[in-house]
Amino acid sequence: MAESFDASVAFTDPEYRQAVVDLLGVIAYGEISAFERLVEDAKLAPTLEDKFALATMASAEFSHVHGLNDRIRSFGGDPFEAMAPFREAIDGFHAHTAPADWYEGLVKAYVGDGLASDFYREIAAYLDPDTRDVVLSAMDDTQHSVFVVDRVRKAIGADPRLGGRLALWGRRLMGEALTQAQRVAADRDALTALLAGGVDRPGLDLAALGRMFARLTERHSKRMAELGLDP
Amino acid sequence: MAESFDASVAFTDPEYRQAVVDLLGVIAYGEISAFERLVEDAKLAPTLEDKFALATMASAEFSHVHGLNDRIRSFGGDPFEAMAPFREAIDGFHAHTAPADWYEGLVKAYVGDGLASDFYREIAAYLDPDTRDVVLSAMDDTQHSVFVVDRVRKAIGADPRLGGRLALWGRRLMGEALTQAQRVAADRDALTALLAGGVDRPGLDLAALGRMFARLTERHSKRMAELGLDP
Repeated sequence: MAESFDASVAFTDPEYRQAVVDLLGVIAYGEISAFERLVEDAKLAPTLEDKFALATMASAEFSHVHGLNDRIRSFGGDPFEAMAPFREAIDGFHAHTAPADWYEGLVKAYVGDGLASDFYREIAAYLDPDTRDVVLSAMDDTQHSVFVVDRVRKAIGADPRLGGRLALWGRRLMGEALTQAQRVAADRDALTALLAGGVDRPGLDLAALGRMFARLTERHSKRMAELGLDP
Repeated sequence: MAESFDASVAFTDPEYRQAVVDLLGVIAYGEISAFERLVEDAKLAPTLEDKFALATMASAEFSHVHGLNDRIRSFGGDPFEAMAPFREAIDGFHAHTAPADWYEGLVKAYVGDGLASDFYREIAAYLDPDTRDVVLSAMDDTQHSVFVVDRVRKAIGADPRLGGRLALWGRRLMGEALTQAQRVAADRDALTALLAGGVDRPGLDLAALGRMFARLTERHSKRMAELGLDP
């Protein structure tokens, strides 16, 4: 983050407030929705132990929602009203990316979650420090990646064709995520204005936005490579 | 508990060890299974806020599993092997009690969970103190009942016929739970031997077992009454 944030602005600028409530709402609904889908996808697990591991990831996502909801309330918002505008886009993402098997579910958990996490971390740089902390701690789930990487790499080792299918799947996840993110951006002016900044707030110009997307894509490719998949 | 437990027995008596691993396994699988079903049933919620409340109950159940698994390991057992013998009975219970609507789901969460909780609390009296603490803390979820009682009472107030249907539903839940519990008892000798006690362990005679079932039934009736339902 190049510029510093004037913390007093957070509660006095109504546009900023709306943007933050929007942002926390979309993150919270994303976590609830990811939780539901992970529990659903855990049914595909080959063993009870694997099911338990995925359900543990799901529960970790869910546990973040409470902090996000509290922060929405501290801005005078209602958490469930704040989530409502984003249900269609997020439900749409999941409807278009229902995993066909256990491994597609694992890749989705890892790649989808990683993408969302990177994106919100980038945006966190444009938030007041307290909100930033809430957002960053909601993204804290690195302990689960070892399990997914291990399972996917072993499965590809045993069946190389699976690697080709999962590589395509990873690209589809990226495409669907971008499609839905664009829908949200087009709908929610306050949220896009957040990135543009304001008089007392740092923001992104088009060149910086381009660099941000380059970083997101690069990290996505790294994650695919960790799983043993062509980006 | 009338008699005291000689704690040194816990790790030296192989029959007791097998019984405790069985008991912790059935409780753990019960929690995982309840978690999955609650998340599934949460889809029936009329609002996102209600869905979130039920998913919060689900996550609380799930969080207990880690402690149960750790205790199974401390007895030299493998948690997932310990759960395996009970999957059929517990899955059977859920297959026979799939809620037809949101309110049946709420009553099931409240009444089913309460029954299991009462039963394991009774059994906890026959355990070594450390295992007893693990079991009792896995049963600790009283904070959720306010939500369920409020929602069910309001719905019955608005539609008294619903009360009749839910009262029947509560009785079916009790019947299905007893059926599956009997199946488990018939299959797992170590587990039933736990209740009978041993040289250095307190146990239940038939009269005491009868009183225990009377207490369970009475508490079930109380829970039904709290929901505004005929027991």
